[in-house]
Amino acid sequence: MKERTLGRGVAVVGAGMSRFGAFAGKTTRDLLAEAYRDMIASVDRGFDPDEIDGVYIGNFSSELFEGQGHTAPIMADWLGLGHRPATRVENACASGGTALRDAVLGIASGIYDVVLVGGIEKMSDLAIERVTDALATAGDELFEIPSGFTFPAFYATMATAYFARYGTGPDALRAVAVKNHDNGALNPKAHFGMRICDVMESKKAAALKKGKPVPQWAGVDDFLNDERANPMIAWPLRLFDCSPVSDGAACVLLVREDLARAYTDTPIHIIGTGQASDGPLHGRADITTVTSARLAARDAFALAKVTPGDISLAEVHDCFTIAEIIATEDIGFFEPGKGCTAALEGVTALHGAKPVNTSGGLKSKGHPVGASGVAQAVEIWKQLRGEAGTRSVGPNARLGLTHNVGGTGQTSVVHIFERR
Amino acid sequence: MKERTLGRGVAVVGAGMSRFGAFAGKTTRDLLAEAYRDMIASVDRGFDPDEIDGVYIGNFSSELFEGQGHTAPIMADWLGLGHRPATRVENACASGGTALRDAVLGIASGIYDVVLVGGIEKMSDLAIERVTDALATAGDELFEIPSGFTFPAFYATMATAYFARYGTGPDALRAVAVKNHDNGALNPKAHFGMRICDVMESKKAAALKKGKPVPQWAGVDDFLNDERANPMIAWPLRLFDCSPVSDGAACVLLVREDLARAYTDTPIHIIGTGQASDGPLHGRADITTVTSARLAARDAFALAKVTPGDISLAEVHDCFTIAEIIATEDIGFFEPGKGCTAALEGVTALHGAKPVNTSGGLKSKGHPVGASGVAQAVEIWKQLRGEAGTRSVGPNARLGLTHNVGGTGQTSVVHIFERR
Repeated sequence: MKERTLGRGVAVVGAGMSRFGAFAGKTTRDLLAEAYRDMIASVDRGFDPDEIDGVYIGNFSSELFEGQGHTAPIMADWLGLGHRPATRVENACASGGTALRDAVLGIASGIYDVVLVGGIEKMSDLAIERVTDALATAGDELFEIPSGFTFPAFYATMATAYFARYGTGPDALRAVAVKNHDNGALNPKAHFGMRICDVMESKKAAALKKGKPVPQWAGVDDFLNDERANPMIAWPLRLFDCSPVSDGAACVLLVREDLARAYTDTPIHIIGTGQASDGPLHGRADITTVTSARLAARDAFALAKVTPGDISLAEVHDCFTIAEIIATEDIGFFEPGKGCTAALEGVTALHGAKPVNTSGGLKSKGHPVGASGVAQAVEIWKQLRGEAGTRSVGPNARLGLTHNVGGTGQTSVVHIFERR
Repeated sequence: MKERTLGRGVAVVGAGMSRFGAFAGKTTRDLLAEAYRDMIASVDRGFDPDEIDGVYIGNFSSELFEGQGHTAPIMADWLGLGHRPATRVENACASGGTALRDAVLGIASGIYDVVLVGGIEKMSDLAIERVTDALATAGDELFEIPSGFTFPAFYATMATAYFARYGTGPDALRAVAVKNHDNGALNPKAHFGMRICDVMESKKAAALKKGKPVPQWAGVDDFLNDERANPMIAWPLRLFDCSPVSDGAACVLLVREDLARAYTDTPIHIIGTGQASDGPLHGRADITTVTSARLAARDAFALAKVTPGDISLAEVHDCFTIAEIIATEDIGFFEPGKGCTAALEGVTALHGAKPVNTSGGLKSKGHPVGASGVAQAVEIWKQLRGEAGTRSVGPNARLGLTHNVGGTGQTSVVHIFERR
């Protein structure tokens, strides 16, 4: 592997997001404006939007979801940034992370000084079966989709292979769901920000109120294994193993490192970036790991000159619970096959040794596809600056990592952030 | 305007394209592979594809045209470049030019040394009315498309405004069409590579063969003003004023400038890049010019430290004939209102003072949307290296320019190329 260095350093000086959820009547323009205002409010010394000299927008498929292509200049114009170079980046669910990377490279290149990165997706206007079809375009439309695969089936296949290789079962998947909903309950922007135990109690209360028989679940595990409460989507993935269909947007403001202190005393430096690709799932030798994520992490760590052991916390791409377990192995937090043990033992919990998805992750916070990779950076920004409120991992966090995956791992993007 | 410099220089060391046309049964994968092989054959000293360390793909809407999103890693895998970071860039008809720019910035940033830029679009599988709908997503789906605008109507509106301001008429449009078909007739890769006079003669011959009355056109002008031969699409734009719906792909290979001589003795350096945006057409104060193109050209010239007078030839975005006339003014070849005179007087002809669209342009070569911006670079590469065959502008061309526009000019991208 060649030694790489960024021509110029890059820092985050502002970050914000819209509420994630299902918002009838709101377009991506409205959601991005909400995230942009939240981002502006986060810049400690304020800033003049005229200073922005480039815009990158991560968006998966506004064509299919809203009938709008050419998304980047439409968004730039809507935010009052009309003439700035604006580029839309599409790498499926890794669109946001890829837009972040292209913005980092744009600043490092010498061409841009202050870049707005936006991530957007408005998914809830389509009928759900058409959403599934739209998401399927992130697979391989020649060789996978015609055989009937959709994304729950892809990840169910990966889970099955993982179980077969490591002799484990669905318990670790449920542990990830419980943890991420615990974290999401502390995130006011989350789409499904309720602990699963509270979901269970609310269902009992609703039954009681309607005069129906109250389900007698022995506990959360029992609830999660009840087919009516948590129906099977694609074995072994049940409803609570799947991230939701969400609307939302997120923004980060990147600047040339030497300008950062003009905006804040607490910039968050981007010290590592890595991206890699892979062929569609059907052609891979090993589907218990995501090779592109391993390569992206390798390159990000090499650039940052740190190791997985140095990282305080990570936001990883938990589009399905199995994806989080595999992700924690791919980024080097745990050995292959040990991600499930870590999840079961609480190592990745908010106050565990390696907190993962303190935001609630895609699972609970929501997964507006193009926004997710940018929203991960928003969470790391908040955590490293000590602004994560009740879900803070504590004041000692110095290095954070984001791991954003497109499709089944045809794209992975990893970034490493540092508070100095 | 801030002074900008690229952190590292960038050169083109290979370029190729597929034939442009309508190819039933071929996918974008096939077309890109054809362009890639053509590009490989163009690298003077050959090269090992393993040296490629990044891939950027310009593509407007493979979701709508082929049901395939997540296009970049699919393409990288198809070319045997499976794990390379691969990013799809979407800026409507400027997707190719934007991908080229992102690749330039990627190399300048220090992260990439050797980058493949691909441009692709496969449009002919859809029914033509659905193609029109797909292209309309490059406008503004909230405020323009619902009012009934499609792209011929947008450009017809611009032409009408231009005529009204400058007191000119459709003659210059017809001159652009004749010139670009003259050039395209010399380009074996062109979709409609036939001179318009030959189209006229072939229609006469066909009528004669069928025993029908032979049309008695007085000449090409008469032919182009005949409603049956050249029907009105949206006044003043007739059929021969509109670029076709095409399938095709193009590739260029970019390397860090200091590596270029390992590949060829005649690299073509990219010395200028500019990109700018604008709001949708309906909100602009002046629609006789494309402001984003003026700004992109300004930035590209500033970076290159050359002036429009220094440029030997240009490939500009003639999606409609009026677009070429406005483009030649926006890039500074001619004063506002003088582009039509230049077209009528042959200034932009192959052996005129300022040759424009020697490839045949989008008009005759074809316009597979995401490929067009990359194919422009392929033509400049050929011309500056003296490899344009019968359509060569001659051995003295040293500087070439590409001008690629998305939608009605919500995006413009300009690059300047130099043979040293």
